[in-house]
Amino acid sequence: MNENFKFEVLHVDKQTGARLGRLHTPHGDIDTPVYMPVGTQATVKAMTPRDVEETGASILLSNTYHLYLRPGHRLVEQAGGLHKFMHWNKPILTDSGGFQVFSLAKKGDIHEDGVLFRSHIDGSKHLFTPESVMAVEQALGADIAMCFDECAPGTADYRYAVKAMDRTHRWAERCREVHTRPDQALFGIVQGCVYEDLRIESAKTLAAMDFPGYGIGGLSVGEPKEKMYEMLDAIRPYMPENKPRYLMGVGSPDCLIEGVLRGVDMFDCVLQTRAARNGLALTRKGRIMLRNQTYAEDFSPIEEGCDCYACQNFSRAYIRHLIKAEEILSGTLITMHNIRFSVRLMADIRRAIAEDRFGDFARELLEVKLF
Amino acid sequence: MNENFKFEVLHVDKQTGARLGRLHTPHGDIDTPVYMPVGTQATVKAMTPRDVEETGASILLSNTYHLYLRPGHRLVEQAGGLHKFMHWNKPILTDSGGFQVFSLAKKGDIHEDGVLFRSHIDGSKHLFTPESVMAVEQALGADIAMCFDECAPGTADYRYAVKAMDRTHRWAERCREVHTRPDQALFGIVQGCVYEDLRIESAKTLAAMDFPGYGIGGLSVGEPKEKMYEMLDAIRPYMPENKPRYLMGVGSPDCLIEGVLRGVDMFDCVLQTRAARNGLALTRKGRIMLRNQTYAEDFSPIEEGCDCYACQNFSRAYIRHLIKAEEILSGTLITMHNIRFSVRLMADIRRAIAEDRFGDFARELLEVKLF
Repeated sequence: MNENFKFEVLHVDKQTGARLGRLHTPHGDIDTPVYMPVGTQATVKAMTPRDVEETGASILLSNTYHLYLRPGHRLVEQAGGLHKFMHWNKPILTDSGGFQVFSLAKKGDIHEDGVLFRSHIDGSKHLFTPESVMAVEQALGADIAMCFDECAPGTADYRYAVKAMDRTHRWAERCREVHTRPDQALFGIVQGCVYEDLRIESAKTLAAMDFPGYGIGGLSVGEPKEKMYEMLDAIRPYMPENKPRYLMGVGSPDCLIEGVLRGVDMFDCVLQTRAARNGLALTRKGRIMLRNQTYAEDFSPIEEGCDCYACQNFSRAYIRHLIKAEEILSGTLITMHNIRFSVRLMADIRRAIAEDRFGDFARELLEVKLF
Repeated sequence: MNENFKFEVLHVDKQTGARLGRLHTPHGDIDTPVYMPVGTQATVKAMTPRDVEETGASILLSNTYHLYLRPGHRLVEQAGGLHKFMHWNKPILTDSGGFQVFSLAKKGDIHEDGVLFRSHIDGSKHLFTPESVMAVEQALGADIAMCFDECAPGTADYRYAVKAMDRTHRWAERCREVHTRPDQALFGIVQGCVYEDLRIESAKTLAAMDFPGYGIGGLSVGEPKEKMYEMLDAIRPYMPENKPRYLMGVGSPDCLIEGVLRGVDMFDCVLQTRAARNGLALTRKGRIMLRNQTYAEDFSPIEEGCDCYACQNFSRAYIRHLIKAEEILSGTLITMHNIRFSVRLMADIRRAIAEDRFGDFARELLEVKLF
């Protein structure tokens, strides 16, 4: 394993087995478990990078599919890479576009070689193969790249799930063969839909390939949350202890806690940012819809005790006014809060793990319907 | 005159007679000539207050008409006033809503008592009178309030212009009678459309009322810019030397310079912020439309030498990408730049006045088609 990307498990919670870790990358260290805000198009929506940095976020996710189409990975490379282009000097992870292209591709467009898909922007045709995706991700230059995988829907039948999983494994090999950037870690992705035996087979197969880290893909794509938790429980014994485990596209407050309980180290989710732009704020007492009349004359902050810029300086009444008046600042302020909320939640989770009381802490948190 | 609002003319440029001044307010001093960014709905669009502060803006304008309708002046008052509500601790000026309601009112809705208008939000009927507007502005609690005036269009005939001007003078008296806040300065507004004799009469009449400052209203409302400059030249000898002069709603880069040349001390304009959200940036070499293909691979900042956050950290290529991808951050970054551009322009203008070389400086600036 590349020394650039050393992962240390610092402590294992005695109550639950949840892991406290640290992942080293060329752009800095990441304390795990970690929540990664999403900057799909090389920007966390409604935020400046310095606002994002202030939330305490230690790594961002950006989307290969979107950046490939616009502005194009060659332009980003020409700009000096994604960090420089978007002015974010901490770690970045890029997904592989697998999730996006499979939802855009038509039946018959998926071959052993790769996936033919149409751009959601202009309808133009494009081909993603493991090799081409590696070229794109290496041009973008994130600290962590994900293998190109076949992401079957949550409703896929067993036959298709097997086919997609096997292909994902072959593609993982192809990705590994062409990936050369020493300053970028390539993570494999465990697939297998909602079938325990397939998930276990996938975890074992990928573990044998010795990637520096592992995504767990194809969950939270239509199946009930309980199924997702079952899959996490099933693969847990087969995931290498000394590698970070990243549950892809999952990160509502309850899922963050349930994931950590099941040994997950990394999460990403657009809920925090998307919900914010719809006026929805996260709190430890549950979510609140700031658009509601209830908050019209409420001069308290979004969440009492929160240290984010929004909570320190603005009232619910003001933010509600901004929402009603369709002012951009409402999205900015709630996004700041929702990211900070998630970053603080993860910091508290890490503290609880360090003190061997994460089981109690998780139970207490989950007593409230967080989302 | 209230000591809270002392205005000092510090220097008069020997080349042009342009004025360097300082206006004291309860929320701080304002060096003049000054450009005021606009925060219509208690927010400068796409900006946090700290981002606005960083541009060096020393005073904001906010709109009485909009705040009266939403969230309502009583709510703002309950929140502790506009400064606290929007978290802006420097000076604020509120207009009187005159400009807005006249463009919304129908013929027959304007009476000696006031103006009946329909809300642009829900069509509900409202009456603005000098007395009701003073109640609204005092509840909002800006440092500077404007008198309720009748703002005739640039195309108004002489007969109507006389009527509107006379009414504006009677309303100014009524405003003065009911305005009581000692921590708020009430400015009169010179009207008279594009008729020199009326403008002069208005300037004289209002000067006699001894307001602590004067707006010059009803310009840049459809008439050619040359007409506006003629009016400013005409009234100049009749405007009290020891009071600030505020050219309302005007502030494109060329107008800022032409206004200062004619003795104006204060300006406000939405161009900087509105243009930014359309991808248009101001520079000393003229405006640039960052959406254009020309900038796709341009890795230089919006304006070489600019010290704003956008120019210090992002390229034209990145900002163009954000525009094409319809990302909010494009508006934020260009707004930062356009406000900083205008604030720096005014600082350079003040320096040139202090050094008796503003005539040369203005000529040099105006050689370029700035806007």
